Amino acid sequence: MTVKLGIIPGDPSGIGPELTAHLLRQERVAHADILLIGDAHVFRLGQEQAGIRYEMNVVDATTRDFSSIPGFALHQIKTISPEDVEIAQSTPASGHSVLRTLDTALQLASDGIIDAILFGPFNKSSMHLAGIGHADELHYMADKLGVEDYVSELNTLDGMWTSRVTSHVALKDVAAAISIDRIAQATKLIDRTLRRAGYSRPRITVAALNPHAGDGGNFGREEIEVIEPAVRMMAAEQMAVDGPFPSDTVFLKLKRGERDAVVTMYHDQGQIALKLLGFERGVTVQGGLPIPVTTPAHGTAFDIAGTGRADCGAMLAAFNLACRMAGDWQKEEGA
Amino acid sequence: MTVKLGIIPGDPSGIGPELTAHLLRQERVAHADILLIGDAHVFRLGQEQAGIRYEMNVVDATTRDFSSIPGFALHQIKTISPEDVEIAQSTPASGHSVLRTLDTALQLASDGIIDAILFGPFNKSSMHLAGIGHADELHYMADKLGVEDYVSELNTLDGMWTSRVTSHVALKDVAAAISIDRIAQATKLIDRTLRRAGYSRPRITVAALNPHAGDGGNFGREEIEVIEPAVRMMAAEQMAVDGPFPSDTVFLKLKRGERDAVVTMYHDQGQIALKLLGFERGVTVQGGLPIPVTTPAHGTAFDIAGTGRADCGAMLAAFNLACRMAGDWQKEEGA
Repeated sequence: MTVKLGIIPGDPSGIGPELTAHLLRQERVAHADILLIGDAHVFRLGQEQAGIRYEMNVVDATTRDFSSIPGFALHQIKTISPEDVEIAQSTPASGHSVLRTLDTALQLASDGIIDAILFGPFNKSSMHLAGIGHADELHYMADKLGVEDYVSELNTLDGMWTSRVTSHVALKDVAAAISIDRIAQATKLIDRTLRRAGYSRPRITVAALNPHAGDGGNFGREEIEVIEPAVRMMAAEQMAVDGPFPSDTVFLKLKRGERDAVVTMYHDQGQIALKLLGFERGVTVQGGLPIPVTTPAHGTAFDIAGTGRADCGAMLAAFNLACRMAGDWQKEEGA
Repeated sequence: MTVKLGIIPGDPSGIGPELTAHLLRQERVAHADILLIGDAHVFRLGQEQAGIRYEMNVVDATTRDFSSIPGFALHQIKTISPEDVEIAQSTPASGHSVLRTLDTALQLASDGIIDAILFGPFNKSSMHLAGIGHADELHYMADKLGVEDYVSELNTLDGMWTSRVTSHVALKDVAAAISIDRIAQATKLIDRTLRRAGYSRPRITVAALNPHAGDGGNFGREEIEVIEPAVRMMAAEQMAVDGPFPSDTVFLKLKRGERDAVVTMYHDQGQIALKLLGFERGVTVQGGLPIPVTTPAHGTAFDIAGTGRADCGAMLAAFNLACRMAGDWQKEEGA
């Protein structure tokens, strides 16, 4: 069964509309039924920026099967007027546009009309100006979908995955925020997500917190008191988990393909690694939601917004991953 | 004037003797006058492990110019008996051997007989078993040379440099250990070292401590209260310094050649980056000593010691850097 994928263009002030145009030129998108969700003029703006034309035909996806529409089906909603789109600016209007297109996509997903969501980059300042009411888009989505379990952003690049035990936390507070429970949650989430992305038994390794993994307790005892017990507990639950390994070599295991995922203790531990391994191709998965939701790991790139120079690599990778995950979830449900 | 370089093989139980043999096969070593310092049987062991023969001729370098010796000059000292060399083991005997060869090399350097020192990998456990009496070899060397100023390991790889404000410290204690003074010391040290390595005005950037550089104080205030004032202070002293930049993108500036060095706040911040950028070619410079001292950034590699499979890349890079730095220091003193 062909995957039905909803695409929202992201912040209209950023590079999302242009990336959408680049993406829809790619021949590889043919293996999904695509539903564009948002304002026609925002998608057209992206076409102009990219110098690419694609055919859009408006459909009300709530009442009609969009897969038979010629060109690309557009579920049109009005979220922003053309004169309110200010390129490379954080504005309440663009944040509002993002939240309304996201609301519609989540509703279409809840109603079973689409199987997965791909979004162009959001801008956190704009979303906050528009009153998002949550720390980030993931917690906003979890709230809209009624998810109460643990959610966390996962990052992936060329088959290398990371999850985080802590994220937007001051470095001085990281050690106190690490617990056996939180490590178990982050590990189980990436295990489940990778299984849903087609890995039969994901090989997961856990990063240490301290330099040289604490050197036997000389530079910190969290490895001994928290991380090792967590790893033992999860290994006893039949997950393919090992560690903790020093964080300056653990990513070499990912790079060499010896592991599929690293559970990181803090934001920059994993982000330094993934951005060096391929800044332009990274994908963020909104982990813990009932449907696959992916986006490029990079931001709205206001420095090049509107110039036609945006690189579509991460958007294409996010598209392919959303399709693969949705396909696997269909098989899982059919099984 | 040709650089006079002292080479000690490192821990006899590790891959240092083998790396020395690989190095001396390279044709590029011809541009230095090399003095091997240590036990003849340890150097011969490395030749056997590598399957490489080179000619050694014993000389007392304290009384005779070694540069006219055919083959490679060996300043022989007895630090370990052949039967006490245990491959891939930490032993007091191997640690003792390391400290005695190092003592001799430092004395020869103090006496002006050699201009720089290259050492094969040491093993920290062995040195501690032998009673090093300091946290690491750098502080041991500083003590022997009567250095009381700030010293710190610097790491370098393919023209990319890092220094550290904190090093072997538990992550929970890092934030409290960061100060304007310590950042200034780490920055000035790398500025001075790079000038001595041939950079006329090193372009240095300072990494942030917190995710997203604290996001304007939302995830930590060290950027605002400590790092930014330190950067302003150093810029006012005419150094080419900027920052703080988020640590997940600052290393991309190094990789792209937009900066020469990153001052890192903690051990793994820089080590994750450098090891991913080229684990096998990294070099450690013992920063703050009166002579250039370099070594491969990797360790004794007990897992492959004695097998003949050691990669000489970092040893060769450490050799080249020691020669370049010694040559520049000669010019500096002559100027």
